[in-house]
Amino acid sequence: MKALNLDEYIRKVPDFPKKGILFYDITGIITNPEAFSWCIDKMAELYANKRPDAVAAVEARGFVFAAPFAVKLQIPLILIRKKGKLPGKTLTKKYELEYNTAEVELQPSDVKPGQRVLLVDDLIATGGTLCAAKSLLLEAGASVSEIFGIIGLPFLKYKDQLCETPVSTLINYSSE
Amino acid sequence: MKALNLDEYIRKVPDFPKKGILFYDITGIITNPEAFSWCIDKMAELYANKRPDAVAAVEARGFVFAAPFAVKLQIPLILIRKKGKLPGKTLTKKYELEYNTAEVELQPSDVKPGQRVLLVDDLIATGGTLCAAKSLLLEAGASVSEIFGIIGLPFLKYKDQLCETPVSTLINYSSE
Repeated sequence: MKALNLDEYIRKVPDFPKKGILFYDITGIITNPEAFSWCIDKMAELYANKRPDAVAAVEARGFVFAAPFAVKLQIPLILIRKKGKLPGKTLTKKYELEYNTAEVELQPSDVKPGQRVLLVDDLIATGGTLCAAKSLLLEAGASVSEIFGIIGLPFLKYKDQLCETPVSTLINYSSE
Repeated sequence: MKALNLDEYIRKVPDFPKKGILFYDITGIITNPEAFSWCIDKMAELYANKRPDAVAAVEARGFVFAAPFAVKLQIPLILIRKKGKLPGKTLTKKYELEYNTAEVELQPSDVKPGQRVLLVDDLIATGGTLCAAKSLLLEAGASVSEIFGIIGLPFLKYKDQLCETPVSTLINYSSE
């Protein structure tokens, strides 16, 4: 695979969505076909020898990377959405944010018991949303074999929340 | 291309998100790799002879279909998001829903002036969101060459709002 410096395609926006937060913007990746394809190819390469049975994506930027990956590997795509977005029977998991709580949902009918699922988001920070998503998948009878993010912020200690599950990212940033 | 009856993969959920609405659920498509790939291949076939310069996707289910299409055609993917989700300089468009209003946003830096853009969502109903998305793209200097949805509900008269722009869908439902 051709070398590519992914950092060049990630815009850093200070004070978004609020003061003190440095936001890593993936739109510079997906508006560049070479960089976008490179990410999907890298994901396929990472999981070539431990092919998951399905990929689950966290709303909404997770969809952008998980969907082409699902098509490329010919595996089912499972959506983890914010509360109230999925119809029919859903499982719900509440989790804590810095100052309040949020909820994510999953349709259990999308999951086959025993499926080994790769869980995908664009960026992994504290791991709070992914931890909630993981417990929904477990509740539905799947196992979460691995977690993937394009970008990782390991200084926010996501490994503490996601403990036993292996986490892979394409690029990491430190707090500096 | 192999024939496939897409209707078999679309779950119909009555009274979601509220009483009286029949919701067409695309999760049955994307959890089936054959049906999901069929949709992306159909999209590629539809636009093979009028290849757009970029594809714009409406949050969040639009991302699921536009992202693999962008990777397949090797064209940029532009995100149209709900207000407050995109960092940096954004253009905003307010539009009317049945009982209230909503706003969508676009980063003008994602758009190159003169680009011919295909605008994608999963389902086209009244066309209100797509009409707002289209005006954002025009404001950023692009042209919207075509609009695509997996599912169309023509009885909700989306053509009235999207007038001159050609609309294609893979399956339509009537009000019965």
